[in-house]
Amino acid sequence: MKEKTIILLSGGLDSTTTLYYAKQKGYDCHALIFNYGQRHAKEIKAAVEIANLVQVPYQILKIDFPWKGSALTDSKIKVPSFKTFHKNIKSIPVTYVPGRNTIFLSFALSYAEAIKARFIFIGANAIDYSGYPDCRPGFFKAFRNLIKKGARNKEIQIKTPLIKKTKPQILKMALKLGVPVDKTWSCYKGGKKACGACDSCLLRNKAFNSDYHNRG
Amino acid sequence: MKEKTIILLSGGLDSTTTLYYAKQKGYDCHALIFNYGQRHAKEIKAAVEIANLVQVPYQILKIDFPWKGSALTDSKIKVPSFKTFHKNIKSIPVTYVPGRNTIFLSFALSYAEAIKARFIFIGANAIDYSGYPDCRPGFFKAFRNLIKKGARNKEIQIKTPLIKKTKPQILKMALKLGVPVDKTWSCYKGGKKACGACDSCLLRNKAFNSDYHNRG
Repeated sequence: MKEKTIILLSGGLDSTTTLYYAKQKGYDCHALIFNYGQRHAKEIKAAVEIANLVQVPYQILKIDFPWKGSALTDSKIKVPSFKTFHKNIKSIPVTYVPGRNTIFLSFALSYAEAIKARFIFIGANAIDYSGYPDCRPGFFKAFRNLIKKGARNKEIQIKTPLIKKTKPQILKMALKLGVPVDKTWSCYKGGKKACGACDSCLLRNKAFNSDYHNRG
Repeated sequence: MKEKTIILLSGGLDSTTTLYYAKQKGYDCHALIFNYGQRHAKEIKAAVEIANLVQVPYQILKIDFPWKGSALTDSKIKVPSFKTFHKNIKSIPVTYVPGRNTIFLSFALSYAEAIKARFIFIGANAIDYSGYPDCRPGFFKAFRNLIKKGARNKEIQIKTPLIKKTKPQILKMALKLGVPVDKTWSCYKGGKKACGACDSCLLRNKAFNSDYHNRG
């Protein structure tokens, strides 16, 4: 019997690559998709399309963030272009959603316990990323420890296969796995076309554009 | 200026006592109430009544648990009476909601980051409790570490003032603080009157009944 696993699926390049990776490894994948009032709700549609394409069951979980506090959930806060974004590289950008990955993993843990899944896959990346603190290896290590201390099933494991990869490496992996890259959605703005200017677009474009390193 | 704090408020004796405790200590309290499809939704009404009574702002957060997996969220699973409940004292009871406190604390963390609160109070208790793993000191210690590793504001602290108290001690504290004990709701079944047979009722009754120790 295939081992059950939960995949956090946003519909972006990273989580889709993670899903294809887990599928290829032979896991019985169950996708978890969040509708958290994100500005780029378009990614939910992409996630569902991808889940249907690879024929994995999925759950869409609706979450309210009544307290806003992020450019991704509050239309009053502007999504910055790359230049503004990295003006102060040390600070956490306004697109950070307070507690988001902690909440996502908590639900994944609940789902895993309920359906007796052994693994939780998340496509987090700490190399070519926006600097969110809840995407770093130390955070996932701490969450693994939390499971050991407070879950019913202490054997549940969190897997982060992309954590140390660069964006070009992720794209290479995606193409090798047959990921329909054109169906994934990354842009934070969620318009008709990707804006090409937000941090998510720039990180994605890095993978496709070898000139990236010269952009200054 | 009073220090902002989040209080997880269920409407039961423990969380209400925790709210009164934090109020008395002078914190600027913000209550967080969850509507997670619990069988005893009556506790939500109690929580709102209490928040209004002490005039603290509150948020009600709606959560879906599409995967059920607990007697508290799935009407098909019976809430056991005390005898059944403790038949096998070592196992985690069916009223355990997978990942519940991890999810609750994750949202509290998000809320605390968004409104710049410094503390999160939770009325968890690991003495007279149902044996849930996410009520034990080790779990809270692990969550504190998670905040240090993955939150924007690493200074946010979790406070568990009842963790080592017995139920009679909690009641004593509640009465001293002026908690309107009659307005709190603990019974898992959520009927017109408390059933008096579920674990939550029995723990509550322990506080009121010195014969409790002889029920054996």
